[in-house]
Amino acid sequence: MLTFRVIAKDGEARSGVIETPHGTIHTPAFVTVGTLASVKTLSPRDLRDLGTQVIIANTYHLHLQPGEDIIAGAGGLHKFMGWSGPLMTDSGGFQIFSHGAGKEHGVGKIASIFPEEPDRGGHLRQKTGKSLVTVNEEGVDFVSYLDGSRHRFTPETVIQIQAKLGADIILPLDECTSPLHDRGYTRVAMERTHQWALRALEAFHRYGGPHQSLFGIVQGGAFEDLRKESAAFIQEHGFSGFAIGGSLGRSKHDMHNVLEWTVPHLPEERPRHLLGIGEVEDIFEAVKRGVDTFDCVAPTRMARTGTLLVSGYPRHRMHILNSRFRTDYGPIEEDCPCYTCSNFSRAYLRHLFAAKEPSAMTLATIHNLSFIERLMGEIRSAIAQGSFQDLMDMWTCQET
Amino acid sequence: MLTFRVIAKDGEARSGVIETPHGTIHTPAFVTVGTLASVKTLSPRDLRDLGTQVIIANTYHLHLQPGEDIIAGAGGLHKFMGWSGPLMTDSGGFQIFSHGAGKEHGVGKIASIFPEEPDRGGHLRQKTGKSLVTVNEEGVDFVSYLDGSRHRFTPETVIQIQAKLGADIILPLDECTSPLHDRGYTRVAMERTHQWALRALEAFHRYGGPHQSLFGIVQGGAFEDLRKESAAFIQEHGFSGFAIGGSLGRSKHDMHNVLEWTVPHLPEERPRHLLGIGEVEDIFEAVKRGVDTFDCVAPTRMARTGTLLVSGYPRHRMHILNSRFRTDYGPIEEDCPCYTCSNFSRAYLRHLFAAKEPSAMTLATIHNLSFIERLMGEIRSAIAQGSFQDLMDMWTCQET
Repeated sequence: MLTFRVIAKDGEARSGVIETPHGTIHTPAFVTVGTLASVKTLSPRDLRDLGTQVIIANTYHLHLQPGEDIIAGAGGLHKFMGWSGPLMTDSGGFQIFSHGAGKEHGVGKIASIFPEEPDRGGHLRQKTGKSLVTVNEEGVDFVSYLDGSRHRFTPETVIQIQAKLGADIILPLDECTSPLHDRGYTRVAMERTHQWALRALEAFHRYGGPHQSLFGIVQGGAFEDLRKESAAFIQEHGFSGFAIGGSLGRSKHDMHNVLEWTVPHLPEERPRHLLGIGEVEDIFEAVKRGVDTFDCVAPTRMARTGTLLVSGYPRHRMHILNSRFRTDYGPIEEDCPCYTCSNFSRAYLRHLFAAKEPSAMTLATIHNLSFIERLMGEIRSAIAQGSFQDLMDMWTCQET
Repeated sequence: MLTFRVIAKDGEARSGVIETPHGTIHTPAFVTVGTLASVKTLSPRDLRDLGTQVIIANTYHLHLQPGEDIIAGAGGLHKFMGWSGPLMTDSGGFQIFSHGAGKEHGVGKIASIFPEEPDRGGHLRQKTGKSLVTVNEEGVDFVSYLDGSRHRFTPETVIQIQAKLGADIILPLDECTSPLHDRGYTRVAMERTHQWALRALEAFHRYGGPHQSLFGIVQGGAFEDLRKESAAFIQEHGFSGFAIGGSLGRSKHDMHNVLEWTVPHLPEERPRHLLGIGEVEDIFEAVKRGVDTFDCVAPTRMARTGTLLVSGYPRHRMHILNSRFRTDYGPIEEDCPCYTCSNFSRAYLRHLFAAKEPSAMTLATIHNLSFIERLMGEIRSAIAQGSFQDLMDMWTCQET
């Protein structure tokens, strides 16, 4: 079980400490994505070195490969992947349901299940018009993208799988809706998610490990009344923390609204996780509204294509393949203490990306994750000092 | 400049110390391949940690990308790639000349120049029947596989390029022959290589950095008289060490002959490098015949496809994707102290390879290179103790 305490507040922004059986998470915290029990291109040694606090793996992907029994046989996910720190597992709800293309647009509830990392901020590529998923009150039937095998996820099996995986923080099965779903369908999905949450809690009491904690997921799309109703419902039922899931609307403005409708209805003394958000500007907007943790593939995925996170560039991104970096012998960022910036130049990184050397992705990922960890540290300090808004203004004013 | 001293001999096998301006190489030593100024999937930190002593990069590849001037602008190859230890550069002779398909077979002197690592032990894949290379006494004209641009390498330009790169040990341009070339052509190529060697020495005196050492390359294919003649010629001209290049014949037996014809004609007090050899059995056979160092892509390339080096398996190879490893929770090797074996199971590595996670290649490369470094340490100890042949028997008896 985890404990959480708030140690500083600055407006709605708050800094706190989550104590898990596998270590401490200082919040606000970035949760690094390790979908398939590995943070792509890095080792646990690299992650420790750059300051990673907590990793989120994915129940849906790990169920399909290698399967939860193989991981349980290793003594659980921590031992299997060599990560002794705090771990979360996502329920796989997002992987099963489309959020980018709804039935309304005639593309099926889920157009494709794709063999990539989950990306709640991204888009599903449609490979076929035929849905691989059917949803009913009992749960979800779906076909594996790997081998065509048939699977059923129910609120109970998803808890059983996560009990075998053994992460410190686990999530119940939920139904994600698309920003294009109407209020009617979003309500149906929300109410189903609520019933599944209750079944998940019951299954968790039966199957959950003594060191595990179950968070509830708030749904309701971008509809004010539904978000409020969902938050009010979910917070009543003894979850150890809360995740804000599903569609966050069609714009940044919608996302801010969703947070403002949701967070005030969640109990002050429990941690709040925002699923699938992690761009610099979004982190500030979420922290400002009282979010404690978030996960996102953006820093790692961008790194693998040569997009480096920096302060002072448009949208905090430097495209290292740009030819202007061919003879730029400075580090990615002058004041960055990460292994990459301490040892390598922009010119070298550009060369590695141009030559498609695998170490390019590793060094870029080290930098991007270090950047985010350092940013989170600055945010925590600013909250403690009551200067969060100043820090946010400084970062967001740099945007063009 | 380097110094070399032999500290122990056991038959023809010998152990020694090469002192370079960037550190010490204890021989016999494996030279890790970092073709494009990066050992694929690893960082210099990983390499230090696993015991890498020296890296060889490739002049041909680095000339094409990013170009020697960009590397010189960074302060040379050591600084560019963040490796402060000893470095070699290969001249690019092998990349330019085919050794697997000669004119005799109607495929052109070089059937293709391929955008991969050099692999003297492997085979050139033919992409086109049109040669990209023409050789004459002056040098070599070739077309870049990257952009079709035309380039000329001469003995002088290859030294100038390597002076800009700044590796501790550099090599002259040579003409590699195929095992299928006849004695007549092999002699022509050998004599040309000898003339180029003299021009390279002169260019080295003019352009070489004060910390650099130039090795001579012995050619002569698998012909006893040519190898003896080449060794006798090359050893006369003041090179700091010697490399055995070109075709080593059509079988392991031929390779042993080539070494026995060549090595006795090289001076005892200079280091001897065997180009492109690095399988376990070949290492023993070469050390037994007085070779001090070798480079080979095999350990790193095999790692990236999931072939792991182990003692006690057929040909010292374990194919980790084999389904028997799905639930094998032991390390790759019980007594291996490497980072991978200390932290991860065969089951985890199999999962990473099956899921095509990039960290699979990194962890496998760490193990394979650690394995080779540990083997080289055992060989050095055995030579010091006069038990080299026992060690060799032990390893070669395990083969099936």
